[in-house]
Amino acid sequence: MNSTPIRSFQRYSPEIRFADIDAVGMVNNAVFLTYFEQSRIHFFQGIANKSWNWNDAGMVVARHEINYMLPVKMNDEMEIWTWMESIGSKSLNAEYEVRVKHKGQWHVAAKAKSVLVAFDHVNGQSIPWPKLWVHSLEDVGFGRPEGLAVD
Amino acid sequence: MNSTPIRSFQRYSPEIRFADIDAVGMVNNAVFLTYFEQSRIHFFQGIANKSWNWNDAGMVVARHEINYMLPVKMNDEMEIWTWMESIGSKSLNAEYEVRVKHKGQWHVAAKAKSVLVAFDHVNGQSIPWPKLWVHSLEDVGFGRPEGLAVD
Amino acid sequence: MNSTPIRSFQRYSPEIRFADIDAVGMVNNAVFLTYFEQSRIHFFQGIANKSWNWNDAGMVVARHEINYMLPVKMNDEMEIWTWMESIGSKSLNAEYEVRVKHKGQWHVAAKAKSVLVAFDHVNGQSIPWPKLWVHSLEDVGFGRPEGLAVD
Amino acid sequence: MNSTPIRSFQRYSPEIRFADIDAVGMVNNAVFLTYFEQSRIHFFQGIANKSWNWNDAGMVVARHEINYMLPVKMNDEMEIWTWMESIGSKSLNAEYEVRVKHKGQWHVAAKAKSVLVAFDHVNGQSIPWPKLWVHSLEDVGFGRPEGLAVD
Repeated sequence: MNSTPIRSFQRYSPEIRFADIDAVGMVNNAVFLTYFEQSRIHFFQGIANKSWNWNDAGMVVARHEINYMLPVKMNDEMEIWTWMESIGSKSLNAEYEVRVKHKGQWHVAAKAKSVLVAFDHVNGQSIPWPKLWVHSLEDVGFGRPEGLAVD
Repeated sequence: MNSTPIRSFQRYSPEIRFADIDAVGMVNNAVFLTYFEQSRIHFFQGIANKSWNWNDAGMVVARHEINYMLPVKMNDEMEIWTWMESIGSKSLNAEYEVRVKHKGQWHVAAKAKSVLVAFDHVNGQSIPWPKLWVHSLEDVGFGRPEGLAVD
Repeated sequence: MNSTPIRSFQRYSPEIRFADIDAVGMVNNAVFLTYFEQSRIHFFQGIANKSWNWNDAGMVVARHEINYMLPVKMNDEMEIWTWMESIGSKSLNAEYEVRVKHKGQWHVAAKAKSVLVAFDHVNGQSIPWPKLWVHSLEDVGFGRPEGLAVD
Repeated sequence: MNSTPIRSFQRYSPEIRFADIDAVGMVNNAVFLTYFEQSRIHFFQGIANKSWNWNDAGMVVARHEINYMLPVKMNDEMEIWTWMESIGSKSLNAEYEVRVKHKGQWHVAAKAKSVLVAFDHVNGQSIPWPKLWVHSLEDVGFGRPEGLAVD
């Protein structure tokens, strides 16, 4: 069983800024990666505790893939769901769904995946995920939240 | 034979702005998509001619994937290579290599692919690629430029 | 008597994005103008009513001035206060205070003023402020909110 | 006589990125501050020499003021002129003119001023401008370049 219940920190509703909109009138495709960055920060702050030292063990993005399905516009109601799909010794697989509400109905506007790597900024190299992180992530659970409707 | 000779408009050297650098001291991962956007504009302007009407036949990004291999920093010498890998009836596959020069040697900092879709902004739907575009792209050729060194 | 009571839409607390932070570790000076843009949108949405037609009567920024007093950092609690100082036939004078909370105390991090001009995007020229706007703004009142503590 | 001859590093022609354009089809007002930032970097790199240590003596922006006169659009030919107007013990006054070319003629699109303060990032406080900086700036000269046409 891979799926998990919904946690509050998995749902993030960013303010869409006027500056996020490009000349075509839609959120620019690059801005989604900024939304995901904030979404990850929101997620990790939700599970972090005092014993973590973010400076010692940071993370970097090794890969993104994203499929754009619907345009997102200035006044759209939007939410981004984030979960961890799996973890390896050095890489963590995050997934996201961007949803917009049109006429009372939520629709998937984008789906994305990131590969995150634990990184020691002091020594400039990737490192194994600290055990404390792995345990915190295991406590949350991996996989797409069960209660999240399929579009 | 899939590869093509190097064309001047396939090489784009953006200015790295101080605002592109994040708190970790590297070009933020989202900014690469902005570089690719400029790189595509540069590419298409290089093959465009007067008969094209960009307003009638725009394009939207349907998918990106990107692998980050090396950090890019403020004063790095950087260039982005762009080529079209293939074209279908409605989708065009673009590829990119981001290269940075360290100690006189070019290294691949990132590799990426985009799926582009011809889009009729007036009617709000995807359309087949106009024949003139397809011919212009065929004239340039598809595939990774032959002369581009492998890292 | 120039001052006004505090209205909820005069206070705006933007999310500080990681991408807003520059290599020096502070919110980049240009990002403040983006915060002010959102702050104005928040302000005008607070007083707008159905009879307004934003497309007919848009506004453009004719001038900004801003004094930076304290750095704003990623995890700072921040709020931006916005009010209209005065209105002329074609220009509207907005003012802002950016406040950050340090050790339980709010401090002014920046003060700014904008001159806004009513603009007819269809005909490409500045126009007098529509009467409905002027009346709505008069209802809110001009000047720095009375209850806003002096730093 | 306050004016100075034109130096190559006073003229900076940034690439206008698609992402700089907002939903109204013009370079967003906040982006001008990013252009000025790059313009200052370009200016100071033009007069810097090996004896400068940017890390020891950084600078922060204490104030901006900017008047927007003409919209700047995606394909506009644009240049930004930068000069130092004067220097005090702790503050340096930079000025800028943004020019766009319409029908073969350059027009002033914006005028701006910044107050820059020498800042010791290690100790977190403003400091007097290092003598070497003052001398380098005096060598360049203060005031609006003589040859720069008046609009």
